[in-house]
Amino acid sequence: MDYREAGVDIAAADAAKARIRDLARGTFNAAVLSEIGSFGGMFRPDLARYENPVLVASTDGVGSKIQVAIAAGVHDTLGYDLVAHCVNDILVQGATPLFFLDYVALGRMDVGRVEAIVRGFARGCAEFGCPLIGGETAEMPDTYAPDDYDLAGFIVGVVDRKNALPAGVADGDLLIGLPSAGLHTNGYSLARRVLLERLGHGLDSRLPELGTSLGEALLSPHRGYLAALEPLVERRKIRALAHITGGGFPGNLPRVLPAGLGARIRRSAWQVPALFRLIQKGGGIADAEMFRTFNMGIGMVVVVSPADLHEVEHSLERRGETSFVIGSVVAAPGVVVE
Amino acid sequence: MDYREAGVDIAAADAAKARIRDLARGTFNAAVLSEIGSFGGMFRPDLARYENPVLVASTDGVGSKIQVAIAAGVHDTLGYDLVAHCVNDILVQGATPLFFLDYVALGRMDVGRVEAIVRGFARGCAEFGCPLIGGETAEMPDTYAPDDYDLAGFIVGVVDRKNALPAGVADGDLLIGLPSAGLHTNGYSLARRVLLERLGHGLDSRLPELGTSLGEALLSPHRGYLAALEPLVERRKIRALAHITGGGFPGNLPRVLPAGLGARIRRSAWQVPALFRLIQKGGGIADAEMFRTFNMGIGMVVVVSPADLHEVEHSLERRGETSFVIGSVVAAPGVVVE
Repeated sequence: MDYREAGVDIAAADAAKARIRDLARGTFNAAVLSEIGSFGGMFRPDLARYENPVLVASTDGVGSKIQVAIAAGVHDTLGYDLVAHCVNDILVQGATPLFFLDYVALGRMDVGRVEAIVRGFARGCAEFGCPLIGGETAEMPDTYAPDDYDLAGFIVGVVDRKNALPAGVADGDLLIGLPSAGLHTNGYSLARRVLLERLGHGLDSRLPELGTSLGEALLSPHRGYLAALEPLVERRKIRALAHITGGGFPGNLPRVLPAGLGARIRRSAWQVPALFRLIQKGGGIADAEMFRTFNMGIGMVVVVSPADLHEVEHSLERRGETSFVIGSVVAAPGVVVE
Repeated sequence: MDYREAGVDIAAADAAKARIRDLARGTFNAAVLSEIGSFGGMFRPDLARYENPVLVASTDGVGSKIQVAIAAGVHDTLGYDLVAHCVNDILVQGATPLFFLDYVALGRMDVGRVEAIVRGFARGCAEFGCPLIGGETAEMPDTYAPDDYDLAGFIVGVVDRKNALPAGVADGDLLIGLPSAGLHTNGYSLARRVLLERLGHGLDSRLPELGTSLGEALLSPHRGYLAALEPLVERRKIRALAHITGGGFPGNLPRVLPAGLGARIRRSAWQVPALFRLIQKGGGIADAEMFRTFNMGIGMVVVVSPADLHEVEHSLERRGETSFVIGSVVAAPGVVVE
C-alpha cells in the first residue's frame, strides 16, 4: 500500500508546486529573500521611512462564492478576490501591503486546477504590489469532494502608527461610498438559494437586467481600493474606512466608529445595482436583511471631515473612481438606512 | 427569506466571535495594538535589537488529521498542532514568532465547537509566545458536511538577516534528530486507511504496543521545538534545521542543504516508534514509502558542525530534550536511509 492508494498523489503535488513557484516568482520584488518551497517565506521590509512601524495582518476566505466558481468551471478569479479583500481589510487600518500567503485545500490534486487558482492569487498579488511569498496546497480527499476545494488568503502590511486609521472621526463627518462590483465575497449562500434554486436560473442564463450571464455577474471580481485611497490615506485626508463585507453596513461601519457615534445612510444617494434588486425581489427579502447581508452596491465607505470633502472627491475623480456622498456620522449609535 | 434560511447563522457567528475574542485576548502581549474584530490585527514589533530584520511567514493546514479529530470528537488539539507546526517552520529559517492568525471554515456554526477549536489555537499561541491577533471563521454549508470543518494557520516571525538559517552547512556535518510525538500532522490519509480500514481498529481500540487508545496516539500533539532550539539558534550553534513534515526525510532535508550535498541517515540510530511499525506492517508498506510519508519518530533534524556536537547535545539535555545523532551530511545529493 502507498500514499497514492490512500488518495494522496505526491507526484501531482510536486508538479503543482513547480507551477506555483513560477507564478509566485512573477509577483516578487526586491524585498523577497526566499523562493517558494522554503519552510517560511522571507521578506525584508523597508522600514526606514516609518517612525513607528506597525504590522497589520488579516486573513479571509471566499465563502460560498467558491461554489459558484466550481459550478461555472472558473477557477482563476477567486484568488484575485481574496487578495483584493485582504488588501482592503488592512487599508481600513491605513496599511499598505507587504506580502501575501495562500492556503489551497482540494479534494483531488488536479494540477491544472491548482495552477488556475494560483494564477488568480498571483494576478491580485501583482496588481496590489504584495508578493506571494508562501502558501500551502493540501490534498484532503476525506474533507472535500473530488472537484471541491477551499481557499484562504493571508496578508501582512505596514502603517506608521501615527497614520493608523480610524483617527478623529466626529459627529457630522461625511460618508462617501465607493461602488462595489457585485457581491464581492459576501452573501453567496443566500444569493444562490434565491437565484439558482428559488428562481431556477442557471449560471449561463442571460438576464437582461444584468447585461451579462448570471455566472459572470456573480463571479465579478472583488474590487481593491488601494490605488484610489492610498494617496488620501498618506495625506491624512481620511478619518476612517469601512470595508463593506459580511454584515453589510450595520456589521461593518460600527467597527470603525468611536463609541457613542453611529451612521445615517440615505439609500437614495446611489442606485442599488440590478443584481441586488433581483435577489431581493426573488427572495422576498426585507430591506434590513438585504443591508445586513450584502454590500448593496457600495464596497468601501470613506469617512471624511466635511472640510475635506471636495479635495477627497476630486482626488478620487482624478483616479477614475466614482463616489457618492451616502450619509453622515451622527451622535447616536447604530446604523440607520433611510 | 433570510440569510439563516440559506444556511448561514449570523447570530451564532456573533456568539462565536465573542468567545474567540476572549480566548485570543489571553494570548496578547504588549505588542498587540488591536482587539479581535478589527479588520486587521495590529502588531508593533520591537525591532530595535535587529540590525537587519527579516520577516518570515508560513501557513499550514492539519491535513487529514482533522478527520481523526472529528471522528474522536476532540476539537481542541488541532489548533495547537497548527501553531506548533508553523512555529517549527519559521524556526527552520532561524526566526522567532511574532504573531499568528487562524482560518476556521465549518459546515455549521456550532459555537461550542468553534470555541474548542480556538481554545487549541490559543493554547499553542500562549505556549509559543505568538499572540493570536486575527482570524476568519466562516460557515460554508455547501462546502463542508454539517460536522466537518477545515483549519489553516498563519504565522509571522522575525530573524536578523545575519542569523538566518541555513548557513554554512558542509560535508561531514552531523544530523541530530529530535523525537516527534506520533505522526504530527502528516501521513494521516495513509495511516487511517491502514489502521482503521484495513486492520479494522477503532479509535477507542487500546493497542498494547501503543499503551494508549489508537485515537489518543493519532491525535498526540505536534511538538514545537522552539524552547529547545532557540538558545542554540541565538548562539549560532546550528547550521540548519529541517522540520520533518509531508515528504519525510527525503522531502525535507534537501530543502535546507546546499546544492551538491545530501544526507545519510542510519535508521538504527533511533527506535522507530510502535505507531509507525503498526502502520508499516499493517499496510505492507515499503521502507522507502514509509520514510517519504512519515516522520518515523524524528520531528526535527538539527545540522551541526562536528566541533559543536557536544555543546549542542548538552544544551538540549539541559532543556530536557532527547536527541540522537542519526546521520551526517555527505558530498552526494539525495537522502539515503540505511
